[in-house]
Amino acid sequence: MSETNRRIVLAARPGPEGVTEDCFRLEVGDKPRPGPGQLLIRNLLLSCEPAQRGWIAAAANYSEPVPLGGVMRSFALGQIVESDDSHWPAGSLVYGRFGWQDWHLSDGSDIDRRCHAHDGPLEINLHLLGLTGLTAYLALTEIGRPQAGETVVVSTAAGAVGSVAGQIAKILGCRTVGFTGSDEKVAACLDDFGYDAAINYRKAGDLASALKAAAPEGVDVYYDNTAGPVSDAVMTQLKPRARIAIVGTMSIPSHPVPEGPRYNRAILVARATVTGFLAFDWTEKFDEAARQLAIWHKEGRIHTRHDVAEGIEAAPAHLVRLLRGENDGKAMVRIAEPA
Amino acid sequence: MSETNRRIVLAARPGPEGVTEDCFRLEVGDKPRPGPGQLLIRNLLLSCEPAQRGWIAAAANYSEPVPLGGVMRSFALGQIVESDDSHWPAGSLVYGRFGWQDWHLSDGSDIDRRCHAHDGPLEINLHLLGLTGLTAYLALTEIGRPQAGETVVVSTAAGAVGSVAGQIAKILGCRTVGFTGSDEKVAACLDDFGYDAAINYRKAGDLASALKAAAPEGVDVYYDNTAGPVSDAVMTQLKPRARIAIVGTMSIPSHPVPEGPRYNRAILVARATVTGFLAFDWTEKFDEAARQLAIWHKEGRIHTRHDVAEGIEAAPAHLVRLLRGENDGKAMVRIAEPA
Repeated sequence: MSETNRRIVLAARPGPEGVTEDCFRLEVGDKPRPGPGQLLIRNLLLSCEPAQRGWIAAAANYSEPVPLGGVMRSFALGQIVESDDSHWPAGSLVYGRFGWQDWHLSDGSDIDRRCHAHDGPLEINLHLLGLTGLTAYLALTEIGRPQAGETVVVSTAAGAVGSVAGQIAKILGCRTVGFTGSDEKVAACLDDFGYDAAINYRKAGDLASALKAAAPEGVDVYYDNTAGPVSDAVMTQLKPRARIAIVGTMSIPSHPVPEGPRYNRAILVARATVTGFLAFDWTEKFDEAARQLAIWHKEGRIHTRHDVAEGIEAAPAHLVRLLRGENDGKAMVRIAEPA
Repeated sequence: MSETNRRIVLAARPGPEGVTEDCFRLEVGDKPRPGPGQLLIRNLLLSCEPAQRGWIAAAANYSEPVPLGGVMRSFALGQIVESDDSHWPAGSLVYGRFGWQDWHLSDGSDIDRRCHAHDGPLEINLHLLGLTGLTAYLALTEIGRPQAGETVVVSTAAGAVGSVAGQIAKILGCRTVGFTGSDEKVAACLDDFGYDAAINYRKAGDLASALKAAAPEGVDVYYDNTAGPVSDAVMTQLKPRARIAIVGTMSIPSHPVPEGPRYNRAILVARATVTGFLAFDWTEKFDEAARQLAIWHKEGRIHTRHDVAEGIEAAPAHLVRLLRGENDGKAMVRIAEPA
């Protein structure tokens, strides 16, 4: 087991060209030693996710930006290696905000969930049972509140979060329509994720017409990961009392704030509700959500894809690929095996 | 009492210049005779309100457009003159959708509220106890849900709905900030409606900075009657868990849909909720709301202004003035006195 601590730190904030590998550099330091009350965690799997773009932007956000020279913020699956806390014995698998590094010292506050080997392959703890699946489940059920028979639209429908949200909506008895960005992803939506219809937004032409054809009765729930033109189309097709969960804004830059159609009148006419969702407001529901998701996964009712790179030095390029939409499933980096 | 039925009908839909007097014409017909199960209502006060612009537009809306040649849709205060329904005896004062005309035949379904002479001057039934006040009260309390100590921002703060919403927020213990369009209205906000701060959006320059100065801790509740630049400023100053009630979109045209800043990221970062409000979804709460508003009015805690024109032929010009923002208080037209 490594006696050094390799870590990916933030070298520069993204410029106009967005996040590139040059934003990061690999540093090698000493393996940290836990002090009193500290847990030493060995990271096994590091997460790459769209939110990381926001975490390294300079602008105010819902979390402080990662400082220059600081370890890249990241979710990770780790294993506790040293502990004098009986609540967290050595050997425990844990999921939390441990950063892109080999080793992490924790006081327990950055552990988000205790993981269980019997739930399935380790990867699902970073995905279906991690922030991805928890976000899909909680934003859909708490904000979208879909009822059987309703129509649910998902943007980035084949993405990590979207593909889970679409499958949950289907399990709950809804008609599901997905927007995605390639014919391959359309096929994945229909074949792997069970969408009733899927639209390639790059090829469909007028998106409102395409959506109307796929959801002739209109949209009850919109699970929005993107903002932008897909949302513009959905907002023209709202049914009365539609619920819109804003979970991500991947298609639009943070700064400057871009312009687009003013939705006010569509929201008013439909008496729709638009709500921003951040998973960390719902931590008290994480275990319950993960339990339900693990059951559906074991029953074979939710399919997941993992796009796993190998070795910590692969993390920056893997993130850049994700932000370009070139990943195939939940992006993560394997850096060690469990003991 | 008139044996003819004067009525204002829709002569033409608004063109690019918006609603003008030429959209309407006065017709004179016979006084209608009630058939079995019908009530004959003598209109006393006719309402003018911003929503009428939408009701005569050709585009789909949350209600069918008024047909060309049809009586202009309107709220009115009327008195039942003939009735064989013991639930609605002759002499009853009623508020409902009776149109811009002397006489209205009703089957009861278009009566929205029974009025009471002891509640105060008749005018308040078209305003504070009518759709205006009910919209102010219900959108604020059901969608905005302000808590004592929170900051509530109101657009068209001196308008019919806005001035009531601002006063209710103040009664509920909130800090209130109003946006309005003239120095006279700023004075009315501060002197008559009790706002803690009021901003003339035509003169304030950068509205976000002006709002930040008036609400340094940010905005908890936004009661939005306008959309447009005022809303753009508010969306930059949201506190976490902010609630936004979209009640009107007066500053923007219905068609084509105008462009403006995309709010998605602001909603996401604040985990805000934006909800469209239409009073008719809340009819079961009308009586309770009116009861509370009448109490506050009698206690002198809510001040109202009425801008009353005389004679049915004055209605079109009165509406046009309202839509230009030239009214001074709730616009209505007196066409008869109660028996």
